[in-house]
Amino acid sequence: MRLRNVSYAKEKINAHPEYIVTVAREEKKLLNNLFNDSKPLHVEIGAGKGQFIHTMAKRNPDHNHIAIEMYDSVIVRALEKVIDDPLPNLYLVKMDAQQIDECFKESSIDSIYLNFSDPWPKARHEKRRLTYKKFLDKYKLLLKPGGLIEFKTDNRTFFEYSLKSFVEYGVNIHDLSLDVHAEVNPANIMTEFEEKFKDDGPIYKIIVSFKEEQS
Amino acid sequence: MRLRNVSYAKEKINAHPEYIVTVAREEKKLLNNLFNDSKPLHVEIGAGKGQFIHTMAKRNPDHNHIAIEMYDSVIVRALEKVIDDPLPNLYLVKMDAQQIDECFKESSIDSIYLNFSDPWPKARHEKRRLTYKKFLDKYKLLLKPGGLIEFKTDNRTFFEYSLKSFVEYGVNIHDLSLDVHAEVNPANIMTEFEEKFKDDGPIYKIIVSFKEEQS
Repeated sequence: MRLRNVSYAKEKINAHPEYIVTVAREEKKLLNNLFNDSKPLHVEIGAGKGQFIHTMAKRNPDHNHIAIEMYDSVIVRALEKVIDDPLPNLYLVKMDAQQIDECFKESSIDSIYLNFSDPWPKARHEKRRLTYKKFLDKYKLLLKPGGLIEFKTDNRTFFEYSLKSFVEYGVNIHDLSLDVHAEVNPANIMTEFEEKFKDDGPIYKIIVSFKEEQS
Repeated sequence: MRLRNVSYAKEKINAHPEYIVTVAREEKKLLNNLFNDSKPLHVEIGAGKGQFIHTMAKRNPDHNHIAIEMYDSVIVRALEKVIDDPLPNLYLVKMDAQQIDECFKESSIDSIYLNFSDPWPKARHEKRRLTYKKFLDKYKLLLKPGGLIEFKTDNRTFFEYSLKSFVEYGVNIHDLSLDVHAEVNPANIMTEFEEKFKDDGPIYKIIVSFKEEQS
């Protein structure tokens, strides 16, 4: 997502440690400790302006939610939603997704959400795609056994790539839609991006879990 | 595919045993014996009017091809193409796809093609879909190790179903396109149906091979 620079973003983020934490590059912080209970944990990676995860958290008060986003000028919009409508079961975290395996307990996450992630279309940027196998290694480590990855995008070639990457890695497909908006589905929570572009072409979605190791 | 009845179809089929053979219900016939050589073998199941397999056979004289179709009034159109332009490496076979495992040697087929198969959308007809697991059992038996299934359809929900069925069964994805005609690809051979409907919505395609058993 491209967003114009928000001049006051950094200042605002630093002013609200009760809603948002920053994990510096190379820093290790155990984000599970943000919550004092053991409710199911849902993590959105690349949470953008936060509409999806804020709606999720609001709908599911008995679950905990963490929204990870790297860019000040984007996550500040999520922060503004949280300031307007604070939720005890939602934290924002400004950090690079590369570091997630250093910041969560193993087998501690129930679901990971990847919504309209940057497709990084150039082949030389493959390693940056959030469905690249090195990222799947991290997700597998952090998800509970049977935990889910929900992946949604409007980018056809990125979806094709991701589907191949998942299947090659070894997953079970729990749900698959090649046109999320072909049917009315009140359970589908939209991001700001999805709301804006859903009529321009299909939105693709897949929900997978990793295959258990054979022992 | 719905096709009006062709009154002379049966008669014409019976008049050309040099191009087309009929396998009656419950009959066993070894179709590999249609060819006297050991060239790679490609089989289209539900060949319709035959444009796809006739073009394939023409382009690949060093490979053998068998087109299976159940309906007289459809396969007679394929027969007419073969009468106009006979090819030594193409046979038509009128039979029910249910019987294929009785009519080929095990591990004898290089590729199986499923083009715009009947989606059988009703849940109670799932077992008739050519990507139902019982059919996958048959394909696995008949394909050489590493042999390919190419599946193409314009039916979104049938593609979603088939993709899940393949992945659940255990396959490697060799190629995947959620919009075959988004890019110009001279290698894509079209069926009559595809030619007619390609501008009405995306054509979906996947090429898979079965995972080898772990020993």
